[in-house]
Amino acid sequence: MHRRTFHQTMLAASLAVVAPQLVRRPPSGVDGARLIRLFDALARFGATPAGGVHRVAYSDADRAARAWFAERMREAGLVVRVDTAANIIGRRGGTEPSLPPLVTGSHIDSVPDGGKFDGNVGSVGALEVAWSLRDRDVATRHPIDFVVFQNEEGGLVGSEAMAGALTETDLAHVSTSGLTIADGIRSLGGDPARLHEARRGSGDMAAYVELHIEQGGTLDAAGIDIGVVEGIVGIRWWDVTVDGFANHAGTTPMDRRQDALLAAARFVDAVHRAARARPGRQVATVGRIRALPGAPNVVPGRVEMSLEIRDLDADVIAALFAQLETEAAAIGEATGTRFTFANMELDAIPALTDDGIRRAIEASADALGLTHRRLPSGAGHDAQSFRTVAPLGMIFVPSVRGISHSPREYTEPADLVRGADVLLSTLLRLDADLQP
Amino acid sequence: MHRRTFHQTMLAASLAVVAPQLVRRPPSGVDGARLIRLFDALARFGATPAGGVHRVAYSDADRAARAWFAERMREAGLVVRVDTAANIIGRRGGTEPSLPPLVTGSHIDSVPDGGKFDGNVGSVGALEVAWSLRDRDVATRHPIDFVVFQNEEGGLVGSEAMAGALTETDLAHVSTSGLTIADGIRSLGGDPARLHEARRGSGDMAAYVELHIEQGGTLDAAGIDIGVVEGIVGIRWWDVTVDGFANHAGTTPMDRRQDALLAAARFVDAVHRAARARPGRQVATVGRIRALPGAPNVVPGRVEMSLEIRDLDADVIAALFAQLETEAAAIGEATGTRFTFANMELDAIPALTDDGIRRAIEASADALGLTHRRLPSGAGHDAQSFRTVAPLGMIFVPSVRGISHSPREYTEPADLVRGADVLLSTLLRLDADLQP
Repeated sequence: MHRRTFHQTMLAASLAVVAPQLVRRPPSGVDGARLIRLFDALARFGATPAGGVHRVAYSDADRAARAWFAERMREAGLVVRVDTAANIIGRRGGTEPSLPPLVTGSHIDSVPDGGKFDGNVGSVGALEVAWSLRDRDVATRHPIDFVVFQNEEGGLVGSEAMAGALTETDLAHVSTSGLTIADGIRSLGGDPARLHEARRGSGDMAAYVELHIEQGGTLDAAGIDIGVVEGIVGIRWWDVTVDGFANHAGTTPMDRRQDALLAAARFVDAVHRAARARPGRQVATVGRIRALPGAPNVVPGRVEMSLEIRDLDADVIAALFAQLETEAAAIGEATGTRFTFANMELDAIPALTDDGIRRAIEASADALGLTHRRLPSGAGHDAQSFRTVAPLGMIFVPSVRGISHSPREYTEPADLVRGADVLLSTLLRLDADLQP
Repeated sequence: MHRRTFHQTMLAASLAVVAPQLVRRPPSGVDGARLIRLFDALARFGATPAGGVHRVAYSDADRAARAWFAERMREAGLVVRVDTAANIIGRRGGTEPSLPPLVTGSHIDSVPDGGKFDGNVGSVGALEVAWSLRDRDVATRHPIDFVVFQNEEGGLVGSEAMAGALTETDLAHVSTSGLTIADGIRSLGGDPARLHEARRGSGDMAAYVELHIEQGGTLDAAGIDIGVVEGIVGIRWWDVTVDGFANHAGTTPMDRRQDALLAAARFVDAVHRAARARPGRQVATVGRIRALPGAPNVVPGRVEMSLEIRDLDADVIAALFAQLETEAAAIGEATGTRFTFANMELDAIPALTDDGIRRAIEASADALGLTHRRLPSGAGHDAQSFRTVAPLGMIFVPSVRGISHSPREYTEPADLVRGADVLLSTLLRLDADLQP
């Protein structure tokens, strides 16, 4: 671990306010103490006894947190509005008003019984960046939009709407809160009939940069400060069915069985082996399984299970799946069973980040004395909604032990500050370097 | 297949009535045509469109079938009563009334949506034996009790009661019909408060012999006429739990997972391999499985599954389980998971048949020109209730493709006749040979 301690960072952050001439940290740093205060204040909305938050989109906790957040944006000097998709947008003007805005932000809704880091880190990080720019009276060329996207956990709803990708079917979907997406948007002050007004097309954003916790354990295990996201993986899902023959577990000898669960078990093992054997960072998961009829004394005649494959490269997903289909056929042959795969709706197309933004993030981390590593994002993020709209960048900070979507999710306060430092520096570099 | 065709058998059976001097079959044979008529008539109670029966114990169909059966017993000259455990007992007197009775029979209740063979074959086979003895005016030394045991499918209820093994807990159990066992017994004319009157202890039966379909595919596959049952296997059940660590399927690299389902899958494969590798006819089954939390995009943190092992020898069950515990520990080590095994209530202790009765069955089959093979019964039967009460024998006839507890369960009519022939001959041999 070659990272500064939290104490050192907070000391530096405090000194930055009190005595700038003593500070070891670069002048582009944010106010770490204020960032942590804002972070802790936000964590009170929907706080759970286990130390996480339960703040599903469109819940009372979500609405209260949004109102609080909009007020903090105003205090930071932003011009705040809620777009028709119910995203909260705080704008800071630029010196060249004809330029499209730089956009940064994240979400503050949570999964049920989730953690207090997740989207809050990038939302509060962006807010602190706005504060820091104001503190220093920095003038940027581009306007900057600081955005809190609504209902990320329910399927990137706010960002998809901003990208013009939300469908009527999506609007009718019932969210975790119990409200339909359409009613949820209305409840937050949006207008599902006028979503087109929220839409941003190609050229409407100079760049989109998001700070987020890694949610995986790669940075934490390697002791790296900053993750430079190469892209957000594509995801494909299949429903896998194995048909064998249900029979009496007492009277059917081992060599006369057509055991669907034996076949499924070998497939689960094959999924793991195949995903590991291939070079690259693809992941493949069987998360759900059911044997039918499901009695201890009946040889299973059918198994239903899920298969998920994720990778940055859609071709890798396709190739791994093709290999698994072949292995399943062989397992079926050996066990007297038959596999069928039903392709579920494509969840997510891979969304690569912009190499110029990756380099801006790396240069920022280098200038701050932080270690960094490129890595894919295995989880989905609002950023991917803008895949065809704007150059994308994402900054990761470490998740302790890689735990996420859990009250046990944790990121060191020092890492929250480092992430916001890198976000601030990256936005300033992009503001200086980007050509219209 | 070295078995006579159904046509040949039925021809012989018909000739036996019309012109005894022309018959090729031994004089001890039953009336095959009558047997099939009785069998078909019984199959109408609770008949299902798929060709099976739905005749769960204590249902209207069960009550109607029992009333019909008792009437047929009376027609066959038996003295019929319902004991306090609600078993139907039809007695034929012997020439030495001090001798304990030979007992034969089976059950006529079915599993939900079951087949029409199962216990009906042994019940109707016994009834036809009673008819044949009457036709020929045979005098036996021993009385013979022809019994229809109640609620075999619900846990050998009637035979366990007759063996004195039914507990208060059993009586309070709710059966498939919706009635408690106690209320079910009352509904059939028994009296749960006076079960002791139904009890038969050691010495109260000269022997117990039951005809049944194999329910497995061994005889059918080998083209053997008669199975000579070596015993009814013991059964042990375990609840198996695998604890790993639930995590995000997108952000958790393959080599950092503690995937409970991967571990469970390897265990399922190990169960199959271990049961096959060992010499002998033990079977081991995982029939039920559940992964938690059970979402396609979450690495399973826990799996719950069943394990069942059956064998004639309790030591073989114990040794196979010990091997699987060792393999589970190694799988847990390799996958970062932990297995725990909770032993369920012992379902069944192995019940060996009597070697003298096995030899009587074989001699009967030989005399009838039928092929035979010794084999264990993988399924439970009323016979096992009398494990400590009387010498046991069981005769199996082939199940086509080994299908059972299904409307697709099937046994050739000719095999029904062969089974009853062997039952008749075996009872007569035991009657002649058994010493008090």
